[in-house]
Amino acid sequence: MSTKLLDLVNIVDNSPYKNTLSSDNLGLTYFLSHDGVVLGKIIKKTLEHLKYVEWLEIENNTVRITDSKDLSSKFAKLTSQWRSEDKFDCLRGWRDELYTCYTTGGKKYFDIERSAACIFGLVTYGCHITGYIPDLKKIWVPRRSYKKPTFPGMLDNTVAGGLGDGLSFKECAVKECKEEANIEEDYARKNLVSVGVLTYEFIHPETGFYQPEVESIYDLIMAPDVVPKVNDGEVHEFMLMSYTEVIERLLKGEFKYNCALVIIDFLIRHGEIDIDSEPDYIEITSRCHRMLEYPLRRV
Amino acid sequence: MSTKLLDLVNIVDNSPYKNTLSSDNLGLTYFLSHDGVVLGKIIKKTLEHLKYVEWLEIENNTVRITDSKDLSSKFAKLTSQWRSEDKFDCLRGWRDELYTCYTTGGKKYFDIERSAACIFGLVTYGCHITGYIPDLKKIWVPRRSYKKPTFPGMLDNTVAGGLGDGLSFKECAVKECKEEANIEEDYARKNLVSVGVLTYEFIHPETGFYQPEVESIYDLIMAPDVVPKVNDGEVHEFMLMSYTEVIERLLKGEFKYNCALVIIDFLIRHGEIDIDSEPDYIEITSRCHRMLEYPLRRV
Repeated sequence: MSTKLLDLVNIVDNSPYKNTLSSDNLGLTYFLSHDGVVLGKIIKKTLEHLKYVEWLEIENNTVRITDSKDLSSKFAKLTSQWRSEDKFDCLRGWRDELYTCYTTGGKKYFDIERSAACIFGLVTYGCHITGYIPDLKKIWVPRRSYKKPTFPGMLDNTVAGGLGDGLSFKECAVKECKEEANIEEDYARKNLVSVGVLTYEFIHPETGFYQPEVESIYDLIMAPDVVPKVNDGEVHEFMLMSYTEVIERLLKGEFKYNCALVIIDFLIRHGEIDIDSEPDYIEITSRCHRMLEYPLRRV
Repeated sequence: MSTKLLDLVNIVDNSPYKNTLSSDNLGLTYFLSHDGVVLGKIIKKTLEHLKYVEWLEIENNTVRITDSKDLSSKFAKLTSQWRSEDKFDCLRGWRDELYTCYTTGGKKYFDIERSAACIFGLVTYGCHITGYIPDLKKIWVPRRSYKKPTFPGMLDNTVAGGLGDGLSFKECAVKECKEEANIEEDYARKNLVSVGVLTYEFIHPETGFYQPEVESIYDLIMAPDVVPKVNDGEVHEFMLMSYTEVIERLLKGEFKYNCALVIIDFLIRHGEIDIDSEPDYIEITSRCHRMLEYPLRRV
């Protein structure tokens, strides 16, 4: 088996670093706020759909918002129209869930339908929870429902979810624990431990969309009587898997790609992957904590 | 008190990122291997001393090794000569300890006296150990000896040390536990947990030297009867300090600067600093795991 942990990182953090290729070489256009703050990056084939938007100005290598009044409504109207005209495949996965775009100082700038954030290459936020039994060195691993539109049947983190507008990361994690794994809110609220954040820049291999992501990471010790249960149709089954088996399945490519990063980070923090035995250790930790040069959410 | 955790990170990871200032603006010259690999960055005032070194070629914005034969001996001879002529203040802290410079694939390229690595802006490696009592939420914090040449009297990590040529990180950590804190080798070897690595680019405020650093991080649970003791004159005293007090003293600037990073990382991994309450959380984690664009040590 020639797969390495770094190969898994390369799949997720796959946007070139500046010393290798400039973003311009990828044909990405900077997406700017009305006052010139870079909010994201837009791929070339999106530009044709933006030409006719009167509150956007395309110039040189930038797309700029010219009028910031009622921006959330403007995006809602635009994305709904695109959806009804079936302009973008990604909007077929319309979620009716709003994501927030932040500007300087971490202030909310506007919100936008979740499935449309990638069109503008905006930073998206989520939370990932690893439910584990330290004494047994085992992790509760779900298999995604075979009916999910994205990554059906792949292995996943115990619980994970996108951060909707107005939620704290912790409340998002608590909510997802209940929805996805039937873990009681009280138990989750008391036992979830915030242990870090992963950041990476993902270019979707099929659509070419550029997607910088922030994943808030939680460890959750699972007491013997806290057994995750399939709840909302997102999960096919939960399996209690030893750290060793988790690593084997990671290297076989069975985990959803960004979930692999969360597991690798877990195994590093818990001493199961060691700097003296993993050749790519230093690069892996940097690549999971990439410096995102955009205004980010702040509390 | 206006100090923030990010202010502490800014002191250590203080080399500009590419979107703000290019390295060239700092007057740094690339230091290249004989086959063109960038190994480090050299400050302008060092160049005059390199002009007369026959196995180095200064050209445009680079200093290149022209002859890689017996490179370790070449560096030993050159740095000894500089020391005897008192060319660089940093060599007054001569350690008689060799550091390794790696090249492509993480292979050893040469070794060099520890106190001279900064002259060439080479990546240096160390290990930092946080000895803690989880049930009490306390950390064993040493005050550095008032006689140390660097950062006398400041607070430090429980144990820390530079990685000498030929050692593994773990063996380095075990050795330093004994030397600095009188923690038995058996106990250290059994209980040290590798939990990550921190990377940052430090520009020394006084000398201007550029120093990329890699610090391998270990957590060490301290049993009630394992009490660190002053051993080798590096430490003035050990104090058992609550997490709360540690944070207070961090913000007062009492910790040696790069040790502050290790403590911040510890408090993040243990849930004491939370993404929903620390405004700079995301930036802090990226800045402690900076992508170092040099060939790095591999196992």
